[in-house]
Amino acid sequence: MVEVRLDRNVLEPNARIAEGNRRLLADHGVFALNMIGSPGCGKTTLLETTLRRLTEAGVRTAVIEGDLETSRDADRIRSLRVPTVQINTRGGCHLDARQVAGALKDLPLDDIHLLFIENVGNLVCPTAYDLGETEKTIVLSVTEGHDKPVKYAGAFDTADFVIVSKLDLLPHTDFSLETARADLERIKPGIRIFPLSARTGDGMGQWLDWLRR
Amino acid sequence: MVEVRLDRNVLEPNARIAEGNRRLLADHGVFALNMIGSPGCGKTTLLETTLRRLTEAGVRTAVIEGDLETSRDADRIRSLRVPTVQINTRGGCHLDARQVAGALKDLPLDDIHLLFIENVGNLVCPTAYDLGETEKTIVLSVTEGHDKPVKYAGAFDTADFVIVSKLDLLPHTDFSLETARADLERIKPGIRIFPLSARTGDGMGQWLDWLRR
Repeated sequence: MVEVRLDRNVLEPNARIAEGNRRLLADHGVFALNMIGSPGCGKTTLLETTLRRLTEAGVRTAVIEGDLETSRDADRIRSLRVPTVQINTRGGCHLDARQVAGALKDLPLDDIHLLFIENVGNLVCPTAYDLGETEKTIVLSVTEGHDKPVKYAGAFDTADFVIVSKLDLLPHTDFSLETARADLERIKPGIRIFPLSARTGDGMGQWLDWLRR
Repeated sequence: MVEVRLDRNVLEPNARIAEGNRRLLADHGVFALNMIGSPGCGKTTLLETTLRRLTEAGVRTAVIEGDLETSRDADRIRSLRVPTVQINTRGGCHLDARQVAGALKDLPLDDIHLLFIENVGNLVCPTAYDLGETEKTIVLSVTEGHDKPVKYAGAFDTADFVIVSKLDLLPHTDFSLETARADLERIKPGIRIFPLSARTGDGMGQWLDWLRR
């Protein structure tokens, strides 16, 4: 398959640049989280609530926003007075390490503890690209259905932990947290799961405690 | 950018094969719909309800199911006794015309009126690949948020019409049908929109009438 060969050529320099990003972040003592999930899974809303609560607790944060186009999400984050760099991929379906390396130059790495990288809304392609992050999470909203971990096992297998979002909508869906948990455990034994609702605050305490650790 | 050059090499034969698929479908008088949307936007549930209602009305259908892995969706559809071919892309983030050409060989084209092609759950990549379909639709669930047409304008611009799904969850979300409609009208003037709920049946009549036209 021609496509596979080409992907490898593209991925190799990406891995090298990602390692450079990882070293740079470690040198500055910054924990960087690569957030991946479908369009509309609630990444930006979760980020807004998380940043607000972390700022109140004295944790200094920054954000890299990946989008195909528009700066809507970055505008939402900037209104919280958190340093934010927008990357527009102009149709590209994922962030890559080179784009993140460029964004890191514009962020005050000495002044922050936590960097959130919101990837392009896409459950498939971003999981194949190391950005040099410390950890990678997948945000799965209950409205997407509990069959998604099995259907996208290759994606979920790359995650360090999973956030199950929009928990407030659980009563209105067929989503089974038990099934999702059992399937994720089979795909990646021991994987941590944070079920939460950024809207009601349900489950946010455990998530924020973990981030502050 | 190396990536762009490679994509073009891959896309050119795709367009040729897609044209072949389009001719084959037209020769058999089959209307083929390429259904694109985020993971969990409700494509399969909408298909199940649609197929059941069309079968009752004497319309003969078939389905091509695109998934990264598993045959869960195809199994759901097959239980309705509709001819179904599963394509597993093994990690590939979209269907391509060659895969569809292979699937068409296994379908009874002389016996069907309507072919539904459920693409891989992904709002970005599938929109760049012509499969030879008659029309292309994007399924957008209200839980994804009304900002998605603007954020993924390049994707929505390729759609012949848009299905706004999970209308039953509208009261539990901030989704504004008016905003989505206005933004879609700006992106693609005159574009048709079907707001519906496969669960409650709300809006299904209009959608089925259009399919039966």
